[in-house]
Amino acid sequence: MKKILNDPSTVVSDSLAGLAAAHADVLRVEYDPAHVVRADAPAPGVAIISGGGSGHEPLHTGFVGHGMLHAAVPGAVFTSPTPDAVQAAISATTGQAGALLVVKNYTGDVLNFETAAELASAENLDVRSVVIDDDVAVADSTFTAGRRGVGGTVLLEKIVGGASERGDTLDDVESVARKVVGQVRSVGVALTAPTVPHVGEPSFELGPDEIEFGIGIHGEPGRERLPTERAEELVDRMVTAVAEDLPLSGGDEVLLFTNSMGGTPLLETYLAHGIAERKLADRGISVTRRLIGPYITSLEMQGISITVLRMDRELADLWDAPVHTPSLRWGM
Amino acid sequence: MKKILNDPSTVVSDSLAGLAAAHADVLRVEYDPAHVVRADAPAPGVAIISGGGSGHEPLHTGFVGHGMLHAAVPGAVFTSPTPDAVQAAISATTGQAGALLVVKNYTGDVLNFETAAELASAENLDVRSVVIDDDVAVADSTFTAGRRGVGGTVLLEKIVGGASERGDTLDDVESVARKVVGQVRSVGVALTAPTVPHVGEPSFELGPDEIEFGIGIHGEPGRERLPTERAEELVDRMVTAVAEDLPLSGGDEVLLFTNSMGGTPLLETYLAHGIAERKLADRGISVTRRLIGPYITSLEMQGISITVLRMDRELADLWDAPVHTPSLRWGM
Repeated sequence: MKKILNDPSTVVSDSLAGLAAAHADVLRVEYDPAHVVRADAPAPGVAIISGGGSGHEPLHTGFVGHGMLHAAVPGAVFTSPTPDAVQAAISATTGQAGALLVVKNYTGDVLNFETAAELASAENLDVRSVVIDDDVAVADSTFTAGRRGVGGTVLLEKIVGGASERGDTLDDVESVARKVVGQVRSVGVALTAPTVPHVGEPSFELGPDEIEFGIGIHGEPGRERLPTERAEELVDRMVTAVAEDLPLSGGDEVLLFTNSMGGTPLLETYLAHGIAERKLADRGISVTRRLIGPYITSLEMQGISITVLRMDRELADLWDAPVHTPSLRWGM
Repeated sequence: MKKILNDPSTVVSDSLAGLAAAHADVLRVEYDPAHVVRADAPAPGVAIISGGGSGHEPLHTGFVGHGMLHAAVPGAVFTSPTPDAVQAAISATTGQAGALLVVKNYTGDVLNFETAAELASAENLDVRSVVIDDDVAVADSTFTAGRRGVGGTVLLEKIVGGASERGDTLDDVESVARKVVGQVRSVGVALTAPTVPHVGEPSFELGPDEIEFGIGIHGEPGRERLPTERAEELVDRMVTAVAEDLPLSGGDEVLLFTNSMGGTPLLETYLAHGIAERKLADRGISVTRRLIGPYITSLEMQGISITVLRMDRELADLWDAPVHTPSLRWGM
């Protein structure tokens, strides 16, 4: 295993130290238990809190800041954060307006965030959860009952962050969150496997001419293994999977998020994005907002995911609202 | 070779099509010869133009926009753009205020940008060049007489873009550029090799326990091959190389740019950044500005580079100035 680290057992805290040093103007890091909070927290509005296993950066820690997350709770690599860490993040950021927990649908995450929410309720804090399960690839998976939460999480965090920032109540923030969850779908492919530092070898084996279609962000098996194919056909297959599941129809307006899983360079990610825009246009769907790049990754895994969110005026306004985090920033 | 593309011979233009679709508000793409220009060009000020082989994205095409590049000229992967493409970019963006060409020091780039500048001069345009050669690793290299231009290029493009945007004359923009070139140094390491699409196999071989210290951004050999070592020692070696070359001394203020070469995830990039900040602090050097992430890459190569720019008030102001490009954006 070749990685830039000191010790697999301290990779997350060592990386958090770099994050803290780099972005002291935006966030601060607590190490025991590990959580990252906005430098200006607690804000008066609804606290938006997310988290999950590390190894998907910038998700979630890179999205802490004005207009997005109030706190992020990073677990060990590909491992859910503990309830006490989530609880610490809630305590650090939640006031009378309450908190919304954005939880990706993995059994461990759902359980640990739920436990933390119950502990917070005992302290008379109004803490609610929204579970995101946007991956159309498989019904159940290695770590998940039901669909997995993947790329849609990035969009959800930005949009509910915008809702909190404009002063929405917890009811309203929750309602926007549920709308996003209902209107967003994703699918991913892998060309290579990631290597978890404390495991030391690739999470799965793929032949030199094979890809995994419908991969999860932890290397969980997808729908099927396919022979490598041209980007044109591969992206069409991906767009079809999300468009038919949502379903999208002619005249719909969408946000298209073409994500690198980490190891796929921007050259190829933009290439895929261009094809996806064309395939959507062929269906009469118009792309009105975009995000392109490595925003929810699986360590150094090569591959991409396509996420489509059906838009309306409210979602567009919340997406466009100013944001200032380490990895997503505009309007300020 | 596993890549997301249709045909190695069209990978650059296919990727540019995705860039054009994604960022029509910021830039437009011309395909024959290939160049990318600001959507609002020609601007009244000095045109800032750069370019080079593709495969280093977001450099350069991802930096076209307000406050940075007026045009970028992408060659084939790891191949200098032709003089006619550079000339087309100059024609599209250069007015009475003239143009500054930002050229990374590779023999092909220097020759082709120089030829284009001469053609432009024949049309009575005031076009000057600045050659960036910030890589301290080796004196001469596979594609270069003298030092290579690497990570410092990103900082240079942002800073001269800021100077142009505030209305500096060509003399002043050129003077700022030469100051940056004099005060910036970089070094890189590779853990794995990139694969150029039209070649189809890795650019070099590295053993499972070897790293290349002082790697170029095209996989050119560096100073030496080293056994893999802990990040603590590796980053110290890198910081020492740049700090002693510049040289830096106690009390200096710097911008620290910790760059992923593409395949190294953000988890490890931040980990390295944290160590680099500490190592600089140990030398009494204070980091006042930062950039962290994959900004000048070598396709999917795993590795990082460290760039240090000695700062002053003027450079800090120009760095902080608003920018709106696909891959670097703040203040707007």
